[in-house]
Amino acid sequence: MRPSGRTPDQMRAIVIEPRFTRHAEGSVLIGFGDTKVIVTASVEERVPPFLRGKGQGWVTAEYGMLPRATHTRGSREAAKGKQSGRTQEIQRLIGRSLRAVTDLSALGERQITLDCDVIQADGGTRTASISGAWVALRLAVNGLIAAGKLERDPIGQKVAAVSCGIFQGNPVLDLDYDEDSNADADANFVLLENGHIAEAQATAEHATYDEEALLRLLRLARIGCTEIFAAQARAVA
Amino acid sequence: MRPSGRTPDQMRAIVIEPRFTRHAEGSVLIGFGDTKVIVTASVEERVPPFLRGKGQGWVTAEYGMLPRATHTRGSREAAKGKQSGRTQEIQRLIGRSLRAVTDLSALGERQITLDCDVIQADGGTRTASISGAWVALRLAVNGLIAAGKLERDPIGQKVAAVSCGIFQGNPVLDLDYDEDSNADADANFVLLENGHIAEAQATAEHATYDEEALLRLLRLARIGCTEIFAAQARAVA
Amino acid sequence: MRPSGRTPDQMRAIVIEPRFTRHAEGSVLIGFGDTKVIVTASVEERVPPFLRGKGQGWVTAEYGMLPRATHTRGSREAAKGKQSGRTQEIQRLIGRSLRAVTDLSALGERQITLDCDVIQADGGTRTASISGAWVALRLAVNGLIAAGKLERDPIGQKVAAVSCGIFQGNPVLDLDYDEDSNADADANFVLLENGHIAEAQATAEHATYDEEALLRLLRLARIGCTEIFAAQARAVA
Amino acid sequence: MRPSGRTPDQMRAIVIEPRFTRHAEGSVLIGFGDTKVIVTASVEERVPPFLRGKGQGWVTAEYGMLPRATHTRGSREAAKGKQSGRTQEIQRLIGRSLRAVTDLSALGERQITLDCDVIQADGGTRTASISGAWVALRLAVNGLIAAGKLERDPIGQKVAAVSCGIFQGNPVLDLDYDEDSNADADANFVLLENGHIAEAQATAEHATYDEEALLRLLRLARIGCTEIFAAQARAVA
Amino acid sequence: MRPSGRTPDQMRAIVIEPRFTRHAEGSVLIGFGDTKVIVTASVEERVPPFLRGKGQGWVTAEYGMLPRATHTRGSREAAKGKQSGRTQEIQRLIGRSLRAVTDLSALGERQITLDCDVIQADGGTRTASISGAWVALRLAVNGLIAAGKLERDPIGQKVAAVSCGIFQGNPVLDLDYDEDSNADADANFVLLENGHIAEAQATAEHATYDEEALLRLLRLARIGCTEIFAAQARAVA
Amino acid sequence: MRPSGRTPDQMRAIVIEPRFTRHAEGSVLIGFGDTKVIVTASVEERVPPFLRGKGQGWVTAEYGMLPRATHTRGSREAAKGKQSGRTQEIQRLIGRSLRAVTDLSALGERQITLDCDVIQADGGTRTASISGAWVALRLAVNGLIAAGKLERDPIGQKVAAVSCGIFQGNPVLDLDYDEDSNADADANFVLLENGHIAEAQATAEHATYDEEALLRLLRLARIGCTEIFAAQARAVA
Repeated sequence: MRPSGRTPDQMRAIVIEPRFTRHAEGSVLIGFGDTKVIVTASVEERVPPFLRGKGQGWVTAEYGMLPRATHTRGSREAAKGKQSGRTQEIQRLIGRSLRAVTDLSALGERQITLDCDVIQADGGTRTASISGAWVALRLAVNGLIAAGKLERDPIGQKVAAVSCGIFQGNPVLDLDYDEDSNADADANFVLLENGHIAEAQATAEHATYDEEALLRLLRLARIGCTEIFAAQARAVA
Repeated sequence: MRPSGRTPDQMRAIVIEPRFTRHAEGSVLIGFGDTKVIVTASVEERVPPFLRGKGQGWVTAEYGMLPRATHTRGSREAAKGKQSGRTQEIQRLIGRSLRAVTDLSALGERQITLDCDVIQADGGTRTASISGAWVALRLAVNGLIAAGKLERDPIGQKVAAVSCGIFQGNPVLDLDYDEDSNADADANFVLLENGHIAEAQATAEHATYDEEALLRLLRLARIGCTEIFAAQARAVA
Repeated sequence: MRPSGRTPDQMRAIVIEPRFTRHAEGSVLIGFGDTKVIVTASVEERVPPFLRGKGQGWVTAEYGMLPRATHTRGSREAAKGKQSGRTQEIQRLIGRSLRAVTDLSALGERQITLDCDVIQADGGTRTASISGAWVALRLAVNGLIAAGKLERDPIGQKVAAVSCGIFQGNPVLDLDYDEDSNADADANFVLLENGHIAEAQATAEHATYDEEALLRLLRLARIGCTEIFAAQARAVA
Repeated sequence: MRPSGRTPDQMRAIVIEPRFTRHAEGSVLIGFGDTKVIVTASVEERVPPFLRGKGQGWVTAEYGMLPRATHTRGSREAAKGKQSGRTQEIQRLIGRSLRAVTDLSALGERQITLDCDVIQADGGTRTASISGAWVALRLAVNGLIAAGKLERDPIGQKVAAVSCGIFQGNPVLDLDYDEDSNADADANFVLLENGHIAEAQATAEHATYDEEALLRLLRLARIGCTEIFAAQARAVA
Repeated sequence: MRPSGRTPDQMRAIVIEPRFTRHAEGSVLIGFGDTKVIVTASVEERVPPFLRGKGQGWVTAEYGMLPRATHTRGSREAAKGKQSGRTQEIQRLIGRSLRAVTDLSALGERQITLDCDVIQADGGTRTASISGAWVALRLAVNGLIAAGKLERDPIGQKVAAVSCGIFQGNPVLDLDYDEDSNADADANFVLLENGHIAEAQATAEHATYDEEALLRLLRLARIGCTEIFAAQARAVA
Repeated sequence: MRPSGRTPDQMRAIVIEPRFTRHAEGSVLIGFGDTKVIVTASVEERVPPFLRGKGQGWVTAEYGMLPRATHTRGSREAAKGKQSGRTQEIQRLIGRSLRAVTDLSALGERQITLDCDVIQADGGTRTASISGAWVALRLAVNGLIAAGKLERDPIGQKVAAVSCGIFQGNPVLDLDYDEDSNADADANFVLLENGHIAEAQATAEHATYDEEALLRLLRLARIGCTEIFAAQARAVA
């Protein structure tokens, strides 16, 4: 039995509120149950130094958590003066995931930054961030297309992410905090709508796992992402 | 004429949504028009080193802005590795303002941290933060009282803050971004419900001002805070 | 009774020693009683990035305290690797105050940096810094004028600053450390010679205050600044 | 054809030189072809704060690269004043991988730090680090056992890691730099001698991949790790 | 000919003003010509962690330069967020030099910190700092003795320092900035009153030097230090 | 008697392994007994900002120690976020020493960076670094000459360094850790093959020393450097 009473392959409620803030070219509030993340997509007409003059754009991400997004208050990274290894690992993953579906040449010499800020955490903040970031990116790119700034659509297809894990011996989908903090193993899969994989990460926490378990986790992730793709489609409709 | 069409002594709509997040002992989403700030109050059963063993508590604040809360994306302070002088100035002001209405001895040896995170900015983020922080603090202290942890209520009365300024020669209340970025002078007043002043700051931006102007700005602030006190009262009712 | 035996509206001795150091374009040692600050004005033929090509100059300030300027040794900010919030707040205030009397267009594309370093502290270091900075700035600008580098004088008038506070229930002028560390409220006023206000900051420390008190503090500040303006005039004569 | 002329499932030469340095409780120089890493295991009779008094130990890792380990000189992280996101991601992975085979309760209240310093890089530095770290850890723990400090052996079995990737459409084992910098996808697998998986990470670089590809990469990794386990066994014999 | 017209073995005017600031247990303003340094000695009843419980004290030093102590403004180390290598090298040298004449056991478990802050620089700031630091230390220790806190005097004898160099082929004493910035080689000697050497550092800048030159520089340093010892004696008389 | 059984003027075994790593233009593993340092010379076709357009090159050095190069593990400077004063002092010394034998005009507008990384420490790491750096620099410059990039050889002659000290009252050559940590005084001499001195540093640790001792230490250094020059010659032959 899962603490939430969900079945093993049941996602939490997915809520996507597009255009959540005013100033960003794209923005969204995404919720996977009690996990809530604000994602904004900011378009800037410049690229990082290593890309200057190469005729292509860049998509990158930054991630943060409000100090009291969690059960107990964590220290503010800006006050500590550095981002944790966990934060950097997550924002690198988000950036890679979105670039996996973006044709950077079609974007032109501009950068889109996806800021993912967790306002409430209950497990799965990085996968909610990726899933929401696609919506924010889609909205921002729609704006560029509407403004006649792009010759072709740089976004090939949807990308979504979900966590799974082995909890009390059983593979389950979309871990909440209670499950995540006690899982034997947890995994994050970043999947494309066509079934391809952009990123698979499966980590033993309290117990190593076998190949069969890895495959079962991937099957669960496919179920979850199908649901997320549908929510993304509704949000940008 | 004000860009928003407001009269000189007209506040923007004040919206206070208490208990906005799940984990914090007190929390609120406060909006002054398009300025929106999440404030959480976190109670910790410890005090900073300089207060250990002195039988009193502490109230402090931290402030941040999501990178794209503003018209153009600002860099993330956690990524830059330090908080700006502006951020530190604001969070010191918020902390002082709340301590002005708190009996730290009555709080006992515990600390309440008020995290003010701006998710959308349109002028007045520090005054909205102070006004919202009082609500979050009130809710957190109510919880301590309900749990029997306090012998008497450490919060003496309400505190609220509002900005005013000289815009195109006229004193106006509750500057939005269009006004704030072009004001001759701007001021922030932190007022108590009994009319006393916790903090007055009035700064010449494009033109210095005289004593009469200072007094007129204070009068406007009294009008604005009256409205904020009412909204605070409804939020904690 | 004030600890120093001064009357409520009595300043400490103001001593201004112009041209205190050799290398700076303008320099001064200013003393408000036992508070002593070295201020240098450095002229550089460049402006910060945000002003490049705009045909105007910039005036900015930095502030520091020798570690043993105070009763007990404070840690060296250079060794800690960051400036405190207090330091940043003060240097922002000094810069704003001097810009309030400077026509930046008349200055041309050059920057004047006012370094205020406290070598001995006894309350009022920020107001002594501002008052001394005007002298250093005046001397540096006189040099630019003498060298034929300016078409018109960019400094409109004098600016000075003084602290006041409510000490044991009474408004008093120019707090020393004994008063400052026990005041109910303290205030800093930055005034122009024509009576206008560049900055007013009044903060409740142990007790909030009313409008009448604010006005009485301002009256005291006017008395103090009159004396400072005279000392500034003598120093640059 | 692979640039090195290797067959798709062919590892580079694995060289493990145990006891490479004098002072560390365990140490090794491990080479996967031209990739060479010094790993030391340092035993300290203390644990990090979050584990104090819990009767268990800790295994952690740090990772670095000499500035000229690479084709062009990279800046020294100590001089820049921070570790990159990549460095932190790698050292977190190394630590987790070794903890996956260590019974922390059996280790007692002591910490073993695995320092992995790359002196020459040609792809696969993190997998060589993990594989070498097991040897250094084994040697250090052998020393603790010989000194009578442990009641039972905290290391359950061997752990090794290897990279694989899709290069020019074909799954290949143990990518060198030429392959790694041009791979469509690359993966790192951390495997136990009993066949279980401690960590699987597969990332699309230039092209996403399907489930079949993921499984083929895992098969290659099993081939590579079998060879590494044999080399580890020889090194600690 | 020296730019200043001095003879090769001629020191600049040495001015030592003891008790220059109020709060420090010992303080001095020392001038070697236009080089002026404020040195304070702060006594604290604690020792650094590595000495706790060992029944001995510690003497350490910190060094800084006001940003405009020099011909052109240097950036403020506190604002840059780190001390330069030069600063650290100098403060380590000052600390070592003073410890060379201090019996740390006789000092008891207390620390004396010597803060050397250059307010005007014209060459020889580190040697002026060391020479002034001895006076500040002597005054502070005299205070401890007068207060009955020490059983015996921990300061064995005087220590002083002076720079010398090869300028236009000739060994000269006490380099000023004009000489220092063009010297073929420069040296700093830290000498005891009994003729012993605490530190000798001789560095080729534009030309290497031979053993004979090294000895001639040392002879010059002995001449200079004799003069400094006399000035120190007068200052503490 | 020396702990190692060496005679007072006996060096430890000097081992120089040129071309130790693949990627650097010059590289070497140098050992002075159990002290082992990897030095790489990296050539870059750019100079630091202060030299741009001046038609000359630059030689600089960076120094680091693997955390467990020493008897007990030291913290990693990259993880702490700053280089220690000792590290900076050493890398400044190495850079100066190599520049003392390099004609920077003959080098052209390029920079050579000498990275000295200590993999095992037993005293004398800075002198081994300097001595090895000359070999790495020589190899890198040989490559530039072979590639026809230099009109004349910028390296005038060999430079080497060795430590000496007063151990138990006796001057001894090439201190190992046991001696270094207990020496009354220690010294580092950087000598040229023609007998000239590039740098002399002699520091009292537990006892000050006289002029005769300084000269005896220099004599020992000459003996040691003669041996190092021979080893350098063999290494680049």
